[in-house]
Amino acid sequence: MRAARYHGIGDVRIEECEPSAVGPGEVRIDVAAAGICGSDLHQYRHGPDGLGADEPHPLTGETLPVRLGHEFGGTVVEAGREVDLAAGQPVAVNPVRSCGACRYCTDGLYHLCETAGFIGLHGGEGGFAAEAVIPAANAVPFPADLPAAHSALVEPFAVAVHAVRGSGLRAGDSAAVVGAGPIGLALVQAARAAGAGEVLVSEPQRVRRDAAAQQGADAVFDPADDPVEGITAATDGGADVAFEASGSEAGLRQALGATRRRGETVVVGVFAAPAELQPTLLVAGERTVTGSLGYASGPNAGREFGMTIGMFERGRLDPGAVVTGRIGLEGLVERGIEPLAAGGSDHCKLLVEP
Amino acid sequence: MRAARYHGIGDVRIEECEPSAVGPGEVRIDVAAAGICGSDLHQYRHGPDGLGADEPHPLTGETLPVRLGHEFGGTVVEAGREVDLAAGQPVAVNPVRSCGACRYCTDGLYHLCETAGFIGLHGGEGGFAAEAVIPAANAVPFPADLPAAHSALVEPFAVAVHAVRGSGLRAGDSAAVVGAGPIGLALVQAARAAGAGEVLVSEPQRVRRDAAAQQGADAVFDPADDPVEGITAATDGGADVAFEASGSEAGLRQALGATRRRGETVVVGVFAAPAELQPTLLVAGERTVTGSLGYASGPNAGREFGMTIGMFERGRLDPGAVVTGRIGLEGLVERGIEPLAAGGSDHCKLLVEP
Repeated sequence: MRAARYHGIGDVRIEECEPSAVGPGEVRIDVAAAGICGSDLHQYRHGPDGLGADEPHPLTGETLPVRLGHEFGGTVVEAGREVDLAAGQPVAVNPVRSCGACRYCTDGLYHLCETAGFIGLHGGEGGFAAEAVIPAANAVPFPADLPAAHSALVEPFAVAVHAVRGSGLRAGDSAAVVGAGPIGLALVQAARAAGAGEVLVSEPQRVRRDAAAQQGADAVFDPADDPVEGITAATDGGADVAFEASGSEAGLRQALGATRRRGETVVVGVFAAPAELQPTLLVAGERTVTGSLGYASGPNAGREFGMTIGMFERGRLDPGAVVTGRIGLEGLVERGIEPLAAGGSDHCKLLVEP
Repeated sequence: MRAARYHGIGDVRIEECEPSAVGPGEVRIDVAAAGICGSDLHQYRHGPDGLGADEPHPLTGETLPVRLGHEFGGTVVEAGREVDLAAGQPVAVNPVRSCGACRYCTDGLYHLCETAGFIGLHGGEGGFAAEAVIPAANAVPFPADLPAAHSALVEPFAVAVHAVRGSGLRAGDSAAVVGAGPIGLALVQAARAAGAGEVLVSEPQRVRRDAAAQQGADAVFDPADDPVEGITAATDGGADVAFEASGSEAGLRQALGATRRRGETVVVGVFAAPAELQPTLLVAGERTVTGSLGYASGPNAGREFGMTIGMFERGRLDPGAVVTGRIGLEGLVERGIEPLAAGGSDHCKLLVEP
């Protein structure tokens, strides 16, 4: 069976892998689709996170190389003992594994587990493969009447749902979104779904600005045209909540600058470097900056995956709108990771259909 | 009458000033004491905030020079028409003036007024003077049975009370305080008063560390000895809430680094420069950084001034403990501002008794 494995910086290979046996509490999934995530690109450019060739991940115990792909879903084709899921059941995969014993896990904050590891980043069988054997606890039933490929989009949309739910956004509040990649677009949709008033977006790429406008943004700004001024004017003094989804210092500065006094900036982007900010903006305006990570996880894959799927079903979120291309497994690196990691690609979310 | 006036960077003069008449809604105060604040030193070193020699302050309309001293109290000696305070009444001065009309004032957030100005920083008659005529709405009754000089300490302690009240600190939570100047010490006391469990302090000066320990800190750390490690160990993984009261990048880094996942850093310090931080610390741990400014203000001087005075009365706060010296008005610059602004002074709060 062919599967993508991450060996280190700039090194992802499509290799022949022996299919695993399905143990107790596990399921084998026939992968319908797997999304290429900013975290994949971050790791491709900057190196692995929490494990190495000689350094086992503290939770999974695995070393490089590891199987890649953590945004995926498909159909259960084989279920081990002690598993409630039957063959034929469509599922979305919540890839987060937690220790269950640290202070965060015992407080129910499994996604903040001190040694949390992602299937497809830190070990286990990732989704860039025809099949993957995973713990059944990480498989969340997905409606059979929705497009099967959308099961791969539950993960990134759950990131946005978690960020909005964790913020102070209330119905009617204005929201700014900095960066309109897949997560930024999902944030636009999730903010709309949460009842946001104006949704304002800053994004350098024209095609992504257009997508944001189509997916619910009231106004879109090119960072070259002073989005802070534009957002401040559009919101009578600053947005109530800003979401930083660019992972850049410039984006963080925009988000913080675009909020009103007592406004909140939620950082969702993955940063490769430190960022400078003006503490005076925080103090003089009693502004808040907070980080948002992943989504609720845990023994039953957490509540937010199910919520997100429910929002797909009720049409509150439109996952298909962020997809701009579908490729086969063999094109993962050349047609997917490489152009996206180089930046400036017109693509937003690329799905791999193995 | 002698009064201190701020003319610009490094230029504070004790000058002869004509006493003002007391108009309707105003009172004349015989100043008992006035504290030298970090904001005074910041302005002395870095220049005025929101006004200049040719640039009137948007609220007060005044230009430089302005009368200095915004932490003060004393006794009403003359009351204008339409004033409820009688001569002989001890008062503490809430120096914040607000426009009453902007979106923040109309939301009751007077201290975040878009054009807020402080008596003694941005116009009006400051407290480094024998007498000051101020709006009666800024004068808060102070108990006659408390030391009159302590009326000058309500303002800085209200800053700490506001920061603690605005934080998520709950009884039993651990609190870290970075910087043990007057505000840092008041934060130690206010965190204790709010029921904090462990209170951990980082402060480079020995004499201030000793003061923090005497005023309720469970452990004190020299920043040279890795306070982040010490606080993390003392709190089983990080403080619930950290208060940044040093106004320095190093202090902000310590505060943020010393909090647990989902922990909160409250920035109270006045920063003269941008500060670099690791957004990854925010995201990966869902940590929060928030700014705290002043205290509740408004038409009746806000609720937090009265609360703070009540905490003085009930012995929950010990304002006298932060005072390390008392000087006369003529020594304000040479014995007060200069050595404090130069840094490294062993003094904490210096009171001027005109």
